[in-house]
Amino acid sequence: MSITTERPVAGVRERFRAFTDEVLAAAPLPGPETVYDDRHPLWAEFRAAGLPNWWLPARFEGPGVSLLDSVGLAYHDPGFAFTAFLPVLGSRMLELYGDPALADEHLSKMTAAGSFTAALGSEAVAGSELTRTATTFRREAGTLVLNGEKAFSTNLAFAPFVLVLARNEQDERDFSVILVEAGTPGYEVGHRWQMSGLQGTGTYAARFTDCAVPERNELRGNGIRVLEVGLNASRILMASISIGIARRVRDLSMDYAATKSLEDRPLQHNAVFQSRMGQLEMEIEVLKSVCRRAAADYDAVYTDPDPSATFYKQGVVKSAIAAKMHCGQAGWRIVSQASEGFGGLGYTEHHPIQRLMRDMRHISIVECGDDVLRGLTYARYVKRPSQRG
Amino acid sequence: MSITTERPVAGVRERFRAFTDEVLAAAPLPGPETVYDDRHPLWAEFRAAGLPNWWLPARFEGPGVSLLDSVGLAYHDPGFAFTAFLPVLGSRMLELYGDPALADEHLSKMTAAGSFTAALGSEAVAGSELTRTATTFRREAGTLVLNGEKAFSTNLAFAPFVLVLARNEQDERDFSVILVEAGTPGYEVGHRWQMSGLQGTGTYAARFTDCAVPERNELRGNGIRVLEVGLNASRILMASISIGIARRVRDLSMDYAATKSLEDRPLQHNAVFQSRMGQLEMEIEVLKSVCRRAAADYDAVYTDPDPSATFYKQGVVKSAIAAKMHCGQAGWRIVSQASEGFGGLGYTEHHPIQRLMRDMRHISIVECGDDVLRGLTYARYVKRPSQRG
Amino acid sequence: MSITTERPVAGVRERFRAFTDEVLAAAPLPGPETVYDDRHPLWAEFRAAGLPNWWLPARFEGPGVSLLDSVGLAYHDPGFAFTAFLPVLGSRMLELYGDPALADEHLSKMTAAGSFTAALGSEAVAGSELTRTATTFRREAGTLVLNGEKAFSTNLAFAPFVLVLARNEQDERDFSVILVEAGTPGYEVGHRWQMSGLQGTGTYAARFTDCAVPERNELRGNGIRVLEVGLNASRILMASISIGIARRVRDLSMDYAATKSLEDRPLQHNAVFQSRMGQLEMEIEVLKSVCRRAAADYDAVYTDPDPSATFYKQGVVKSAIAAKMHCGQAGWRIVSQASEGFGGLGYTEHHPIQRLMRDMRHISIVECGDDVLRGLTYARYVKRPSQRG
Amino acid sequence: MSITTERPVAGVRERFRAFTDEVLAAAPLPGPETVYDDRHPLWAEFRAAGLPNWWLPARFEGPGVSLLDSVGLAYHDPGFAFTAFLPVLGSRMLELYGDPALADEHLSKMTAAGSFTAALGSEAVAGSELTRTATTFRREAGTLVLNGEKAFSTNLAFAPFVLVLARNEQDERDFSVILVEAGTPGYEVGHRWQMSGLQGTGTYAARFTDCAVPERNELRGNGIRVLEVGLNASRILMASISIGIARRVRDLSMDYAATKSLEDRPLQHNAVFQSRMGQLEMEIEVLKSVCRRAAADYDAVYTDPDPSATFYKQGVVKSAIAAKMHCGQAGWRIVSQASEGFGGLGYTEHHPIQRLMRDMRHISIVECGDDVLRGLTYARYVKRPSQRG
Repeated sequence: MSITTERPVAGVRERFRAFTDEVLAAAPLPGPETVYDDRHPLWAEFRAAGLPNWWLPARFEGPGVSLLDSVGLAYHDPGFAFTAFLPVLGSRMLELYGDPALADEHLSKMTAAGSFTAALGSEAVAGSELTRTATTFRREAGTLVLNGEKAFSTNLAFAPFVLVLARNEQDERDFSVILVEAGTPGYEVGHRWQMSGLQGTGTYAARFTDCAVPERNELRGNGIRVLEVGLNASRILMASISIGIARRVRDLSMDYAATKSLEDRPLQHNAVFQSRMGQLEMEIEVLKSVCRRAAADYDAVYTDPDPSATFYKQGVVKSAIAAKMHCGQAGWRIVSQASEGFGGLGYTEHHPIQRLMRDMRHISIVECGDDVLRGLTYARYVKRPSQRG
Repeated sequence: MSITTERPVAGVRERFRAFTDEVLAAAPLPGPETVYDDRHPLWAEFRAAGLPNWWLPARFEGPGVSLLDSVGLAYHDPGFAFTAFLPVLGSRMLELYGDPALADEHLSKMTAAGSFTAALGSEAVAGSELTRTATTFRREAGTLVLNGEKAFSTNLAFAPFVLVLARNEQDERDFSVILVEAGTPGYEVGHRWQMSGLQGTGTYAARFTDCAVPERNELRGNGIRVLEVGLNASRILMASISIGIARRVRDLSMDYAATKSLEDRPLQHNAVFQSRMGQLEMEIEVLKSVCRRAAADYDAVYTDPDPSATFYKQGVVKSAIAAKMHCGQAGWRIVSQASEGFGGLGYTEHHPIQRLMRDMRHISIVECGDDVLRGLTYARYVKRPSQRG
Repeated sequence: MSITTERPVAGVRERFRAFTDEVLAAAPLPGPETVYDDRHPLWAEFRAAGLPNWWLPARFEGPGVSLLDSVGLAYHDPGFAFTAFLPVLGSRMLELYGDPALADEHLSKMTAAGSFTAALGSEAVAGSELTRTATTFRREAGTLVLNGEKAFSTNLAFAPFVLVLARNEQDERDFSVILVEAGTPGYEVGHRWQMSGLQGTGTYAARFTDCAVPERNELRGNGIRVLEVGLNASRILMASISIGIARRVRDLSMDYAATKSLEDRPLQHNAVFQSRMGQLEMEIEVLKSVCRRAAADYDAVYTDPDPSATFYKQGVVKSAIAAKMHCGQAGWRIVSQASEGFGGLGYTEHHPIQRLMRDMRHISIVECGDDVLRGLTYARYVKRPSQRG
Repeated sequence: MSITTERPVAGVRERFRAFTDEVLAAAPLPGPETVYDDRHPLWAEFRAAGLPNWWLPARFEGPGVSLLDSVGLAYHDPGFAFTAFLPVLGSRMLELYGDPALADEHLSKMTAAGSFTAALGSEAVAGSELTRTATTFRREAGTLVLNGEKAFSTNLAFAPFVLVLARNEQDERDFSVILVEAGTPGYEVGHRWQMSGLQGTGTYAARFTDCAVPERNELRGNGIRVLEVGLNASRILMASISIGIARRVRDLSMDYAATKSLEDRPLQHNAVFQSRMGQLEMEIEVLKSVCRRAAADYDAVYTDPDPSATFYKQGVVKSAIAAKMHCGQAGWRIVSQASEGFGGLGYTEHHPIQRLMRDMRHISIVECGDDVLRGLTYARYVKRPSQRG
C-alpha cells in the first residue's frame, strides 16, 4: 500500500524493516529528556539507511515510497515514528504549492541531509480553529513580514525551514502559508513542551517579531486550504501509529499471559483472556483497513495528473479524517481494556502499558480533536445529500 | 471493488442501480407474510434485469461481478438483500469443490433461471459448533444416505438444490458437504421461522430421513473446511448490509431533523445532532473500508490460479470475519444511538427506525456470533506469533 | 425503601408479592391487541387485592406504600407495571396542587374504584419542549375553555379524569394544569398508538375543542413546574422498570445456559458467560442503588411539613432524573449484550429476549429523552458552581 | 451517610471540611518523591485536627464517624485520600477478629498517635488469587514463624504494626491473618513501588524470614475470609475516590470552558460541551448513589449486635464490590471523555487532567481487578437462584 508510488527506490522497504527490527528494536526507549533531532544517534542511523522523508519523490532525489511503512517504527517507538513522519506535513505543502525553484532547493537539500521541516498552525487562543489565526503577515517592499506566536510545532527547533500559517494584516480573510528559514532575524524558537506521551518527540512554541522573508516564500493558494491538504498525509500517518501501538499491546499481553498463571493454568488458557485477544486482533485488522483505504484514496489524488489542483479543490480527504477519528477512538478502547490486564504491576510507573496508553491518547488529540473533525465531517459530507457516502 | 472480476458483463452495475433506485425504492416494504421467493414480483423484476446470483462467473454464463453491489439493495430493503446474496454460500462451495459436471449442470441452470440454492449447516443442539453436527450420511451401494435435522436455512423452500453438511456415520471425524436436489425422497422442508427482522427473508428448518443421493453429489474435501470457505463470501456480504442500513439511518435522521424543530430552530442546526451525524458518517466510512478490504482479500484468492486449493488451505479469510464482527458491533452502536433520536414517535411499532434496528441486530448473530468468531480469531491468528497481524 | 410512608396499610407488600408471583407470573403475556384497562381480568385481580394506586396516602383511603414495589410487576410484565404506576403522575399533581375538595373527591373515588388517571403533556410539534405547548385555555364566565391536540397519553381512554397542560390564550408565558373529566363535551380521545414494546399499555392521542371545565379544576402554580413535580415520581418508577427487565434477562440467560452446551459442557461453565453474568449482576445492583436513592430523596420531600411548597420550589429531583438517565443507558447496554447470547433462536420474533429488548428501549425515550435531560441537568446543576453535586 | 455511627465525636465533620477546604486545597500537589507518612507536614496537620483513622470507634477513643467523608480529600488529592483511608483495612480486621486485649492495645495507640497500619495480602505469583498465597507460618514453641514475600502494601514502611495473610506450613488449606509489629526480627520492608498515579502514596514490598511473633497475634477465623471482610470497607472507600476525582474533572472542565472560546463564544455556551457536562453530572450522582448504598449496607452489619460473626458469615458485602466495579468503570469513562476536552494543552505532562486520569485508573485495578470481582460475583450471587438480587 503506497502513498507515493513514482520510481520506488529499490530496497527501501527492506532497509526500513532492517532499521526497525534491528536498530530500533534494540534501542533503549526515550526518556523525558530525549529529543530525536538530527544529532541523535538513532536519527543518524536512520539517515545512514537513507530513510528520512521516505515519501519525498524522485524529482527531489527521494525514495518515493509508502508512508505506511512507518507502522514498524510505531511498534517499537511511537515517538520516533511521530518525529519521522511529521515532516510530511510541511514538505508536502511545499512540494504541491511552493514556487518550483524554492521547493526544489529546500526539498533536495532535505533529501540529501535527511533533515526536518515543521509546520506552524495552532495558536494558544485559536486552538484548532484556524480561521481565528492571529499571527499576521504584511507585504512590504518585496518581502513578507510576520508577527505573532504559535503554540505547538513538532521538530521545529532543528528544522532548517518551517511553514507558517498567517493572516494578512490588511485583509482578515486572506491567509497564507509562508516558508521561513531557520536563523531568519525575528524568528525565535520557544520552549519545549513536555508531553504526556510520545517521548523523544520535540514539540515547541515559536514567536515571530517583524520577521521578514522574500515574497517567493509565500505558497500559492489560501493558506487554510493549503494546510488542510498538508494535514491529509500526516493524519493518515497519525492514525497508522495506532496499529503499531495496538500490535505492541497484543504482544505484551500474550507474553504476560504465557508466564502469569490463573487457577493453576497459564492465563493464556483462560477463555475470557482469549476472547479479548480475539476482539483485539479483529480491531487491529480494522485499524489496518481504514488506514490502507485512506492511503489508497490519498494516492489516487497524488498520482493524478495535477495533484496540486485536485487536492486544492477537494481539501480534506474524507477517509483520512475518518481514519484519524476511528483509530483514535478504537485505539483508546484497546489500551483502556488492556491496561486492566496486568494486575498491580501494570499500574506501576515504568510498566510498558502505561507508556503505550499515554502514546495512544495523542491520536484523538493532535491535528484537530474529534469534536472539530465531527463538525467538519457534518458540514462537508452530511449536510447536503449529494455529498453523503 | 469486486469479488469476482473475470469477464464482467457490460452494464450489470447500471442495471443494478436501476433496479435498486427505481424498482426496489418504490416497492412497498415486506410484511411478516412476505417471502422473497421465485414467484414474488420483485424477484421476477430482479430476474428480468439479469441480476440474480451476480457473482456467478462467465463459465456458468453468469454476470461475474462484484458482490458489494448489494449495498444498494440493503439501503432499500435489507431482507431482499439478504435473500439475494445468500445463494453465494452454496453456489461458491459447489463451484469450488463440486464435481465439475455437477457444478456446471446446476450452476448454469441457476444462471438461466435466476434461481436459488441454500446451505444447511446449523443444527438445534450444535448451534454454531459445526464439529458437533449430528446429521449423518452413510455410503451405501453407490449412494450417500442422509439422516438428521437442520435448524436454520435461508431460501431453502424454493431452492432447486441445497448443500448439506453431514457427518459420516462410520467415522465421526469425517464430514462432507453433499448436494441434495429438491424433491429427493426423504428430504423434507420444515416450518418457516418468524424472524425479528429481515422481513421477506424465508428461513426454514429441514429434515432428512434415509434420503439417498448419488455419490457424485459429495463435494471434495472436509465438509467443515468447505463450509468455512463458503461462509467467507456470505460473511462479507452480511457485513456489507450494515452499510446500507447505516446510510438509511443517516438519511432518515437528516430528514427528521429538517422538519423537527428544537428551541425554535430546525433540529439540524443543533450542535449535538450535527456532532452525532459527523460521527455516524465517519462510522459509515469505516464500515465501507472494512468491507472493501475483505472483498479485496477474497478477490485476491478467487483470482488465484487455483482458488479451490488456496481457499481450502486458508479456510477463513481473516478480514472477512473481522468485517462481520466490526460491522455487527459498530452497526449496533449506530442504531442504538439513532433509535433515541426520533422522540416518542420513534418508539411506535411502525416507525422505520424500529425496523432498521431489528434488521441491524442480525449481523452480529447469523453465521456465527461474535463469541465464536473471537474464539476462532484467537486460535488461528493470535495464539502463535507467526500468525499475528 | 418507600416513597410514601405515612400509615402503611398492613399486608400490602405481601399482597403485592402474592399478586406478582402467583397471578402475574402465571398470566399469558399481552399481545398487540391487549389493553390493561379496568375491564381486563388482570386489572380486576389487581383491584381485588387492593393494589391499584398503592402510593395514594391514607387521607384518600389509599395504601400509602412504596412505589418501588412495582419492580416485581416489571419482572413479569413491564407493560402491566407501566400501566399500573403511570397514574402516579396525575394523581400526585392533583394531590399536591389541586383544590383540596377537588382532590379529595377524585382521589378518594380513585382509591375506591381502583381506577386510572392520565396526564396530557407532550404534543406533536413541541415534543418534550413543554414551553412550546400549543394547547390553550382561556378564562370565560367562570370556566376554563380548552383547545388543542395532545400526542401521547397512557391510560387516557379509560381514565375518569385527566390532567392537561395548557397555555393561556391571553398570556403565552402562563401555563396551567387543568383537570378534565371523561365525558366533558369537547374532550375527545384519539387513536391508540401501537408501541414497539410495553404491550398491554394503552397510549392515546387526544383533542380538545372548546372544552369547558369549572375554574376550580385549575391546579395551583405554573403548569410546567407542576408537571415537572409530577414527573419526579413517574420517572423514578420508569427507571425502576429496568431492574425488573434486567433481572428477567439474567434469569433467562441462566436458564438457557443450563441447557445449552458448548464444547461438550453446559454453557454455564463457560468463563466468558460467567464473566458477563457477573457484570450483569453488578449492573443490577447499581440500578437498584440509583432507584432507591432517588426514592429516598423523593420521600424526604414528600414527608416534609409542606411538600407542595418544597417540591414546587425544587421542581426536578436531581437523583430522579439521574436515575431515569442511568437506568435507560445501563439497561440498554444490558439487553444489547444479552440479545447476542441466545444464538439464532434469540433472533426469532417470539423469543422473550426480543420482547425484553423492546421493553427496555422505552426507558431512555419516554418522559423526556436523554438529550433533554442532559440539557436540563446542565442548566440546573452544573452551570453555577453552587448547584453542583 | 455513615459507616460507623456509635458516639460520633462532635465537630469531626466540620474539622474534616476545614482540613480539606483550607489545608489540603492550599497544599502543593505531591510529586514522585512525596510520601504521606507520619513525618509529612500535611499528615501532621491532619493529626492535629484529630482526623486520622476517623472510623475507629469510641471504645478505642476514635472519632467513630463516616468513612465517606474522605470524598473531600479525594477532590483535592486522591493520593492523600488513599493514604488516609487504607488503614481501615487492617484496623477493621484487628477490631473484629483480633484478641480483644491486642486490639485494644494497638488501636488505642493508633488513635492517640494518629498512626498507620498496613495489610499484606497480594504476592507476585498469586496476584489477586489469595488461595495461592505462598507466604507461610508455622506454630513453634508458642510462637508463629513467618516466611515469604509480599508484593504491594500501602503505608507499610511507616506502620507500627501490620497484618499479614499467610498459609499454614503444615496444612495448605489453613490460612491466618497475623499481626506483626514493626521492628520484629525477620520482618523487612522492601523497595517502594513507583506508581503511575496516586502520588504521595507509599506502597512497598516486604519479606519475612523466620519472623517469629507471639501466638496471640493470630486473628480468629480463616485468614482469607478475615481479609475479605476487611476489604469491604476499603473497597467502598476506593470506589468513593472516584467521586472526588469526577467532581474535580467537572470543575476543571467548567473553568476551562469559561475562558476558552469556540466560534467566538465561550466554550461553555457550546451545546455539545453542555450535553457532556449534563451526562457527567448524572454520572457523579450515580457514583454517589452506589457508594452511599454500599456504606449503608456495611453500616447495617457493623451496627449489628455481633458484627464479627455477621461479617464473617457474609464475607463480601455485595454492594461494596458492585460499587468498586461500577465506580472504576464509570470513572474511567469519565476521564477518558474529559481528557479529550482540553486540546493540545491537555496532553502536556503537567496538565491536571493527566494526573486525574492516572489517579482514576487505579480504581479498577487495586484490591482485585474486575475480572476477579466478576468471577466472585457470579459464584456467590448468580449461580444459585436463591442468591440472586
